[in-house]
Amino acid sequence: MSKEFSIPVRVYYEDTDVGGVVYYANYLKFFERARTEWLRATGVQLSTMAAESGLTLVVREARIAYHAPATLDDALAVTARIDRLGRASMVLTQRCLRGETVLAEGEIRIGCIDLAAKRAAPLPEDVHRRLKNLIATGP
Amino acid sequence: MSKEFSIPVRVYYEDTDVGGVVYYANYLKFFERARTEWLRATGVQLSTMAAESGLTLVVREARIAYHAPATLDDALAVTARIDRLGRASMVLTQRCLRGETVLAEGEIRIGCIDLAAKRAAPLPEDVHRRLKNLIATGP
Amino acid sequence: MSKEFSIPVRVYYEDTDVGGVVYYANYLKFFERARTEWLRATGVQLSTMAAESGLTLVVREARIAYHAPATLDDALAVTARIDRLGRASMVLTQRCLRGETVLAEGEIRIGCIDLAAKRAAPLPEDVHRRLKNLIATGP
Amino acid sequence: MSKEFSIPVRVYYEDTDVGGVVYYANYLKFFERARTEWLRATGVQLSTMAAESGLTLVVREARIAYHAPATLDDALAVTARIDRLGRASMVLTQRCLRGETVLAEGEIRIGCIDLAAKRAAPLPEDVHRRLKNLIATGP
Repeated sequence: MSKEFSIPVRVYYEDTDVGGVVYYANYLKFFERARTEWLRATGVQLSTMAAESGLTLVVREARIAYHAPATLDDALAVTARIDRLGRASMVLTQRCLRGETVLAEGEIRIGCIDLAAKRAAPLPEDVHRRLKNLIATGP
Repeated sequence: MSKEFSIPVRVYYEDTDVGGVVYYANYLKFFERARTEWLRATGVQLSTMAAESGLTLVVREARIAYHAPATLDDALAVTARIDRLGRASMVLTQRCLRGETVLAEGEIRIGCIDLAAKRAAPLPEDVHRRLKNLIATGP
Repeated sequence: MSKEFSIPVRVYYEDTDVGGVVYYANYLKFFERARTEWLRATGVQLSTMAAESGLTLVVREARIAYHAPATLDDALAVTARIDRLGRASMVLTQRCLRGETVLAEGEIRIGCIDLAAKRAAPLPEDVHRRLKNLIATGP
Repeated sequence: MSKEFSIPVRVYYEDTDVGGVVYYANYLKFFERARTEWLRATGVQLSTMAAESGLTLVVREARIAYHAPATLDDALAVTARIDRLGRASMVLTQRCLRGETVLAEGEIRIGCIDLAAKRAAPLPEDVHRRLKNLIATGP
């Protein structure tokens, strides 16, 4: 288990629905923003990785539990933490919080794929090493 | 277990991402369209239910497995089938198919909430009865 | 001026916002769905056109006037009509209606671009001919 | 004419489409984020305004010119500047830039409406005064 990475996310009109709350699919957008910034902070940029190695990351499975709704103008924290790392996949726990309140929790399984061959492939070595270090230095 | 309900969904530019495939959060949109039409076909309209009873349905938990990507111009079938029904909740299995190929599968747990009290509430009786009949007359 | 082409669009939760109405950017999604189906009905499929000629259509300018809001569960008609056709561009008028009421009107200027060269290019000849015929046989 | 207000916007997968660029409707989302933060910086919070006065702002008309595409991972600046102010409406110029390059430009006409009466209404006095001051102190 590694340290939890967090980004601020502001809720705008685009995120809400007629129920007065953030639309349920949009938490997956927030989660991806956090994963992207977490990867960037770890030294991994997806556009560079695709250009250099022909590999990219795809979501294989997502589980999300909705505990309480986020609403317009909320200042949220959205987190990412790597929990398991394989040669060609990883599992992240992600949360969406308003203050201390956990609004939504997700478990995201991510795989590495070869864009040309369109099949699973091992993570680029330097990416794997960076992620392994994260786990090793976790709390 | 009830019969599987299905709607056609066409993939447009709005649904895709730079990876050349349907963006992972958008399957939840497709699933909700199918749930909405399934409810409508069952005689339940969410806007009417909210106006009449002050109750609505919310997603409590979503699990989605991504098997293969959908792409631009695909003519998909998106399904909904109720698998479990409680007094204040239900579980649906939903699938996204292109021809015979299952592209994504979801398990969606839905709860009924009182909009004013903002807490869980039993389903309106006629809604519960309609859904129970669906399960009883399933395959 | 050509005949007006129309598709039905149902309003789902994903389309709405906390204001209780369809989010203003989403009319552009509806317009693009109508344009895509209009092109398909005219015998033009964008994915095929890109694969065969390396050309695609892009929106150069969009003007949209919002007259009245669409809301959840509305059954809308969204239209497309070509008004002007050049060698490398065209202008469409698009409308979003609920019954006889015009909710939104748009004027969309579309250009043809070469995907590799990333610059304006003449429309493929057969596409240009099909569109010209549409205008010639208009009302 | 007032000073130009600007926010940073990062482009994520959710914003892109299969064409490899930001989907054309999503610039309207970026513009609204900038307008919201501009209003907040001016001391106007839409959720507060709706709660206190029963009034809200709606977009009456949007014009957007697309000059060059934004792509994944771009760090954009999105701006808002009020150009004209009436008693019940205003016109903003908004831009989306990558460095010095203007990718998209919009002119957004906004009206104030009474949420209960569902018709045009004068802006709340303090909001009008704040906006007028912005224009008076412009460059």
